[in-house]
Amino acid sequence: MPRYKLTIEYDGTPFFGWQRQVSQISVQQVLERAIMLFSGETVNTQAAGRTDTGVHGLGQVAHFDLSKEWDPFRIREALNHHLRPHPVAILKVEAVGDDFEARFSALARHYEYRILNRRAPAVIERNHVWQLPMPLDADAMDYAAGMITGLHDFTTFRSSDCQAKSPLRTLDVLSVRRELDHIIIVASARSFLHHQVRSMVGSLKLVGEGKWKPQDVRAALDARDRSRCGAMAPSAGLFLTHVDY
Amino acid sequence: MPRYKLTIEYDGTPFFGWQRQVSQISVQQVLERAIMLFSGETVNTQAAGRTDTGVHGLGQVAHFDLSKEWDPFRIREALNHHLRPHPVAILKVEAVGDDFEARFSALARHYEYRILNRRAPAVIERNHVWQLPMPLDADAMDYAAGMITGLHDFTTFRSSDCQAKSPLRTLDVLSVRRELDHIIIVASARSFLHHQVRSMVGSLKLVGEGKWKPQDVRAALDARDRSRCGAMAPSAGLFLTHVDY
Repeated sequence: MPRYKLTIEYDGTPFFGWQRQVSQISVQQVLERAIMLFSGETVNTQAAGRTDTGVHGLGQVAHFDLSKEWDPFRIREALNHHLRPHPVAILKVEAVGDDFEARFSALARHYEYRILNRRAPAVIERNHVWQLPMPLDADAMDYAAGMITGLHDFTTFRSSDCQAKSPLRTLDVLSVRRELDHIIIVASARSFLHHQVRSMVGSLKLVGEGKWKPQDVRAALDARDRSRCGAMAPSAGLFLTHVDY
Repeated sequence: MPRYKLTIEYDGTPFFGWQRQVSQISVQQVLERAIMLFSGETVNTQAAGRTDTGVHGLGQVAHFDLSKEWDPFRIREALNHHLRPHPVAILKVEAVGDDFEARFSALARHYEYRILNRRAPAVIERNHVWQLPMPLDADAMDYAAGMITGLHDFTTFRSSDCQAKSPLRTLDVLSVRRELDHIIIVASARSFLHHQVRSMVGSLKLVGEGKWKPQDVRAALDARDRSRCGAMAPSAGLFLTHVDY
């Protein structure tokens, strides 16, 4: 059966996450409905990252199989038509071999977390940033971030619901930079644990406001104890930006 | 009476423009209501640019007078509190002399127009861009833009409802640049005619898609004839970014 790779942008605000739910709206559900509407086929899509409620996708990747072959350009146009008015857009459709798996073939996942660091509430970027009024020291946050990159047991920064077998992950990139009144945190790894990025951001925020020293983030990591994690950052600021294969 | 200068960000989507209307919600109305709620005073605010329905502000400026003196920091906090849940945020409050007039003291107004140039619909930036699917030549648009800067009679790019006495304006900057799949148009002038930016953008778009040559924009300007203007660009892509005094 022909297999197709989708690159997808979505605003996570109205969705209860990527994954299909029984009684709540999800990105997967509206996408599979759109596929059904143009092809007549009921498919099961698989995504690179099963983003949580309120988390956004700029370059989420998913795949699905159809029994009939279609021109990828026509698939994109048809899906974007049937996805309206949901805030989900198909950026690219590619025909791929049946050994391609959006989830298991991924070599790296890249997330970006956006903080709006000002007293006034977010307006244009409402639902797309974590607005924090206290001055944040982005350099201290970046220094702390560098102390937890690499291969570690990330139990501290892992949801208690996380179903991964191992808490070991290699965090390739965790960097923090200021752009005017924004603070941008980039996180890259082959894979992440459940709530890992938002948990790390929550602890980096404590460094930014001076409540933690950079070394406290490392000590929390080393403790391998979920109760040592700073309060998790909200979902609105988190974007799955792209996935490498 | 103490006079205060406000720097304001707002999402224009839910508003029928800046200016107070009898039966429609406006930015001016929710702002004056917030001022009344914290100060008990009924004031008349005056803005640098009376943006139209759906046009956004990143650095709109307004002023108003109060009979009592207030700490500017407290005004900002109180206004942001009372403006919720409207998408309007007060970025800055400054005490100014009574010779300051947000509208008449302005030396330059700066607008930005954002085009999302891709086939897939806008999702994260819905209501904040003009999504155009056909490939646009930003260099040709920029060349055309340069041909209408300076002092001209802008009758062609002026709403038939425009109440300005003269159609003469000095357009200091009109530039177009591409940033990945975005096209950003910057327009700066001491003042603009009604619908001038959106009218100019509508004509530049015709150059971008190859329907007009750059010289056609100049010829349209020289004709001083509203009917020679390309279809006006939608309001969603337009931002009043800042005002110089």
